[in-house]
Amino acid sequence: MSSDWFTRKKPAQLERRIEFSDYQQTRDFLERAAELAESEGYYPDMGFGRTYVSITLCPKDDKGEVNEDMRRYAGLLDELVLAARPEGRTVD
Amino acid sequence: MSSDWFTRKKPAQLERRIEFSDYQQTRDFLERAAELAESEGYYPDMGFGRTYVSITLCPKDDKGEVNEDMRRYAGLLDELVLAARPEGRTVD
Repeated sequence: MSSDWFTRKKPAQLERRIEFSDYQQTRDFLERAAELAESEGYYPDMGFGRTYVSITLCPKDDKGEVNEDMRRYAGLLDELVLAARPEGRTVD
Repeated sequence: MSSDWFTRKKPAQLERRIEFSDYQQTRDFLERAAELAESEGYYPDMGFGRTYVSITLCPKDDKGEVNEDMRRYAGLLDELVLAARPEGRTVD
């Protein structure tokens, strides 16, 4: 999991906002994230506009703490950001 | 524009939350909404999880009032809801 994630304790969640350079990148990322959600069976809350996506990961049991499952999922999303935004990490 | 939209005055925006019966419907709607956004050149703020999408439409000039352009766009989104959720309007 990259350092771009903010760990909130109450409520327990991981949050990241990603900026993209255009809508095509945003859609590309959302598409990849949707495939990940289906393969993992976990569907984060996401918000987006033309050039941003914000993601919130919550514990599956809804009352737990930020756990290793969430950090692993966050790491998978980080990889999708790099794939959708090939110019690198520096846009954030 | 259907009566499912909430008109907020400050800040001026139209808001609607739509429930879907499964993730496939949610993705289907988001895909249609993305195509609408590209064809209209206007990209609403959206939030979504597995079985919901929430939409916020703002005036293009960012300080205006809720206007006919926004209501027209809302009506186009209403049509996409019906297309993605063929079982009807009663899920909301």
